Amino acid sequence: MDYKEMAAAARGNMGPWCKACPVCNGRACGSHMPGPGAKGTGTVATRNYEAWQRVLVQMDTIHDRFEADTSVDFFGRRLSVPVMIGPLGDVKLHYGDKWEMEDYNSCILNAASEAGSLAWTGDGMVAAIHESAVRDIKRLCGRGVTTIKPWNMETVMAKLELALDARPAAIAMDIDAAGLPFLKGFEPPAGPKTTFELARIADACHAAGTPFVLKGVMSVRGARKAVESGADGIVVSNHGGRVQDGVPATADVLPAIADEVGEKVTVLVDGGIRTGLDVFRALALGADACLVCRPFAVATYGAGEEGVRDYLGQLARELGDTMEMCGAETTKDIDRAMLA
Amino acid sequence: MDYKEMAAAARGNMGPWCKACPVCNGRACGSHMPGPGAKGTGTVATRNYEAWQRVLVQMDTIHDRFEADTSVDFFGRRLSVPVMIGPLGDVKLHYGDKWEMEDYNSCILNAASEAGSLAWTGDGMVAAIHESAVRDIKRLCGRGVTTIKPWNMETVMAKLELALDARPAAIAMDIDAAGLPFLKGFEPPAGPKTTFELARIADACHAAGTPFVLKGVMSVRGARKAVESGADGIVVSNHGGRVQDGVPATADVLPAIADEVGEKVTVLVDGGIRTGLDVFRALALGADACLVCRPFAVATYGAGEEGVRDYLGQLARELGDTMEMCGAETTKDIDRAMLA
Amino acid sequence: MDYKEMAAAARGNMGPWCKACPVCNGRACGSHMPGPGAKGTGTVATRNYEAWQRVLVQMDTIHDRFEADTSVDFFGRRLSVPVMIGPLGDVKLHYGDKWEMEDYNSCILNAASEAGSLAWTGDGMVAAIHESAVRDIKRLCGRGVTTIKPWNMETVMAKLELALDARPAAIAMDIDAAGLPFLKGFEPPAGPKTTFELARIADACHAAGTPFVLKGVMSVRGARKAVESGADGIVVSNHGGRVQDGVPATADVLPAIADEVGEKVTVLVDGGIRTGLDVFRALALGADACLVCRPFAVATYGAGEEGVRDYLGQLARELGDTMEMCGAETTKDIDRAMLA
Amino acid sequence: MDYKEMAAAARGNMGPWCKACPVCNGRACGSHMPGPGAKGTGTVATRNYEAWQRVLVQMDTIHDRFEADTSVDFFGRRLSVPVMIGPLGDVKLHYGDKWEMEDYNSCILNAASEAGSLAWTGDGMVAAIHESAVRDIKRLCGRGVTTIKPWNMETVMAKLELALDARPAAIAMDIDAAGLPFLKGFEPPAGPKTTFELARIADACHAAGTPFVLKGVMSVRGARKAVESGADGIVVSNHGGRVQDGVPATADVLPAIADEVGEKVTVLVDGGIRTGLDVFRALALGADACLVCRPFAVATYGAGEEGVRDYLGQLARELGDTMEMCGAETTKDIDRAMLA
Repeated sequence: MDYKEMAAAARGNMGPWCKACPVCNGRACGSHMPGPGAKGTGTVATRNYEAWQRVLVQMDTIHDRFEADTSVDFFGRRLSVPVMIGPLGDVKLHYGDKWEMEDYNSCILNAASEAGSLAWTGDGMVAAIHESAVRDIKRLCGRGVTTIKPWNMETVMAKLELALDARPAAIAMDIDAAGLPFLKGFEPPAGPKTTFELARIADACHAAGTPFVLKGVMSVRGARKAVESGADGIVVSNHGGRVQDGVPATADVLPAIADEVGEKVTVLVDGGIRTGLDVFRALALGADACLVCRPFAVATYGAGEEGVRDYLGQLARELGDTMEMCGAETTKDIDRAMLA
Repeated sequence: MDYKEMAAAARGNMGPWCKACPVCNGRACGSHMPGPGAKGTGTVATRNYEAWQRVLVQMDTIHDRFEADTSVDFFGRRLSVPVMIGPLGDVKLHYGDKWEMEDYNSCILNAASEAGSLAWTGDGMVAAIHESAVRDIKRLCGRGVTTIKPWNMETVMAKLELALDARPAAIAMDIDAAGLPFLKGFEPPAGPKTTFELARIADACHAAGTPFVLKGVMSVRGARKAVESGADGIVVSNHGGRVQDGVPATADVLPAIADEVGEKVTVLVDGGIRTGLDVFRALALGADACLVCRPFAVATYGAGEEGVRDYLGQLARELGDTMEMCGAETTKDIDRAMLA
Repeated sequence: MDYKEMAAAARGNMGPWCKACPVCNGRACGSHMPGPGAKGTGTVATRNYEAWQRVLVQMDTIHDRFEADTSVDFFGRRLSVPVMIGPLGDVKLHYGDKWEMEDYNSCILNAASEAGSLAWTGDGMVAAIHESAVRDIKRLCGRGVTTIKPWNMETVMAKLELALDARPAAIAMDIDAAGLPFLKGFEPPAGPKTTFELARIADACHAAGTPFVLKGVMSVRGARKAVESGADGIVVSNHGGRVQDGVPATADVLPAIADEVGEKVTVLVDGGIRTGLDVFRALALGADACLVCRPFAVATYGAGEEGVRDYLGQLARELGDTMEMCGAETTKDIDRAMLA
Repeated sequence: MDYKEMAAAARGNMGPWCKACPVCNGRACGSHMPGPGAKGTGTVATRNYEAWQRVLVQMDTIHDRFEADTSVDFFGRRLSVPVMIGPLGDVKLHYGDKWEMEDYNSCILNAASEAGSLAWTGDGMVAAIHESAVRDIKRLCGRGVTTIKPWNMETVMAKLELALDARPAAIAMDIDAAGLPFLKGFEPPAGPKTTFELARIADACHAAGTPFVLKGVMSVRGARKAVESGADGIVVSNHGGRVQDGVPATADVLPAIADEVGEKVTVLVDGGIRTGLDVFRALALGADACLVCRPFAVATYGAGEEGVRDYLGQLARELGDTMEMCGAETTKDIDRAMLA
């Protein structure tokens, strides 16, 4: 089943906001929330998508014949493909009643794990969702990443303690979540965190032997602060445009950030990555791996675990094909010299 | 009530020219005058709007938690938000019969004052309008800015004397008004002013303890002349494209002008500023505050004083949110390093 | 009568090719010949038009009050406005049966002369047309410019001798005319000319006290050769895209050409100039005056001599307004520093 | 018969995928395969086409009168025009049942030969097609180029032996063919080749006195490897976007490649070349000759051999016209200084 078929199957099974477009590029959903829309003018998601399209690759087929190895290391685990499934906080609200948040998390965690990748679970407003995701990850021997929102420290530390018990592949915090419109006025409040507070969280993770990843870094300055905070990884992300309008595309800020901190921490990126070619582009610009989020909601609504596995397989195949056409035998071989 | 709701309410209550679009970007009104259209090809208003969209901000949420302070100083007065309501000369002609000019001025003056901001009143062709606006500002203890067109000096000095009596927050002259098509052949004629003439006006203002602001400066050269004339402030403005076609967007000329004269005089800017994010962009490029004009006509036609207050509130909220997402605690903290 | 009204009046009075658009920008006519279309992809005419739109002017109204003087010198004659009417070779074929070529030439020559400007007459395939145009120019005491196509030298010299007898303001040769599709295989053939041949033509003109202008120069190299040939002026022109596809816009090559030869020869420009603002742009980029062609066909088909006069008047008014808004009292004052 | 007429005639005679558009620019066919569509987003074919449109030529008609000589040398043979017909591997599958592959190859070989040019034959999956093409080329005394896909070396050497027997003008290998979706999993497999393997092929060609050309080079690095392999020529080609999405336009990479290897090997280019003007652009950017492919399928479906000859003639005429308008008497005279 390819992505277009999943998207076709998803139509009719989703809420009114996501149109399950053949190409998920932020145009049809625009600025509507609830739904997958971006904030304000609703143009950031489209900017993300289009920025990858401008990154051109250098085809070169004069080289050894090989089977491309698409796997990457992620904090000591081997992922079959440099793509993890991004976290959603409230799939029912934004994508429709067919899936409960807990079931959605189970679905993507299971399918990703089977496919040799990892899913990230979101941190909704209901405690039970976090707890359920943690149970799932524990059951999967830690094959998952738990995201915690930047609540007040008391809440964060409580959620963290619970999450660490599952020994997840990593703990992530979407540090930019305070910009989500539906979190405005929520209790406990989510908000910015100082490097001192983040260091406390990182320390707790490290004590448990778990890497800590900051999601929502969009500048060299921010990346430096993340490193100072003791984070083991960052996600170059603008939250798909949902937390702040008028920000750059992730592909446009990635290279400078990777140059600055790429040797010290793991650099991930998300935003508009839709094909294995886009994954190649991201790695060539300096990312170690990618998060892809919305299309997996579509895949799940369209075809459940099978959809998730098939889309991961499609991304791996497309990435492998591009690697062969550009002469990269392993993901380590993909670098900026392979861009035109 | 948010802006889209006001705009929806305004439709049906306005004359045929303004379409009260959900996003006021100069497209629907084009080049039609009367109405809010721009001169010639009618493209300058759209250029203004689009130039802000290209200014990208650097999101950074690794910082202290704070409540953003959106207030700014304007010649010794504290504005709750760096936005003032721009002047209109003939609201009935351009926006429809629902509002008489005098009533419109009263409405925006009252509402802005209540919201902790200021409205600027326009200088139409009927003397009574100027007089009425001055009376309103006097009643509001000077909480308003009186604009005088560049008529012949005799007319200007007479209008100035009347205006100063109200001790307004400032006196402004829209030095570019001679380009307005409907002023062609008007008596007394409006036209350019020399630095010598402007100095006479500035001196009269200063004698009364009132700052003098030149509106319609679009170049470094012009800004220098404004400073030489003794102006205390300038508005980087192309009059929404209504006085000259083929001019740059205000966002594109603002940085160089602010670099040149920003330490000597107050630098304001208008043209296509529609959201609190746009206000952030303007301040980051060097403006001390902004004027927003057409959307307040829509707000007034849609919801009267409540609309004006609500839209000012919306701009303040959006600005505050952007400040929090970019790590600016006060308006002074917003600078070009916060742009991407 | 403004241009839009003339265009409206022309519709129904023209052949099927020209649509008499409110803005004559090469879109509707595309690549169709006969008709005013451009060659090949038909995109050069539009490129010409759009290039002017990107030239932005620096509005500045802090200056003396003056009545702008729009006049320019053209080889010792004073033109009321730096616009002459461009030549057409076969108005009936391209614009419709309403006007015979001879009558069209008479119309534009008379009207331009009355308005203080000059019309250029084209060189069609019928000898009588050239003869008639020459008679008209003689009757108008030389107030016109005769264009001769680059036929073989024998034909050129014969036509030249006839033309010089009228003592026209100048003799022009559209050196690029060999690219006109309908001249292919014509006898006598039109074609390139060497600097030696051109010098012979220039000499003949100079012997009669008449300036010689080369129309169709699009490069610095070409401009240098024109000067070497003894030409007194050049027209930076791509023949509205009708002789060669894939060429630059005239506005884009004008500045370098004017820098190279502007002190030695008169530099004219055509292609997509439609408003007085465009004329200002052309002068700011280094032109001494402009040719405008197609809109005068529309003006003539719509309103005859009155249309021609009114459109010339409109261009003068618009240019004057722009000069006042930018602080240029005379056409000599318009320079590149007035561009943004 | 001009191209638009052939395209009109082809409509109704083709399969459902190619629309025989008046301008063949990759828009209508998009990303559909079978059919002429490009891979992935389907945007590379359009990118190819548009890149040529941005290459602007310097018109200059002050020069000697001459009849432009459009011929070029191709490995010792004189081509009447620097255009050869590109290879198709399965015309029936992609363009419709009207033509069998063998007949199509015969048609283009014959017509190109008669017109003084050469057709390249493709290497489909059926052995008989290769054999038939070789027979045709032998019959035409070698006036054709045989393309061999990068199968395993055993298959390649067998096909090569057969092909060399016809003493074709050259042997080509489309080194990028492994990216063709319909070759995935095919037996024998097509794939990358090392410089060592390519040198073996080149040696075999040279032993037979036949030049060897590598088609599908898109970078300076790849071009250097082609030279190292002993190739006598390269085709700067992205296979019309059919083998890899997200690659640059051929016009954008051609200049650097031609600068690097143009003095050592013959540099050809394809991708979106549709007119004689485009051929001029390609030569000006450093190509020795071009391949044009899809339009010849349209020409053949529309008008058979006559269509092929007429379209070749049209390209020659358009090239000649452009050469005259730009002052290039021979194809050797066309260089980058003739670009704007």
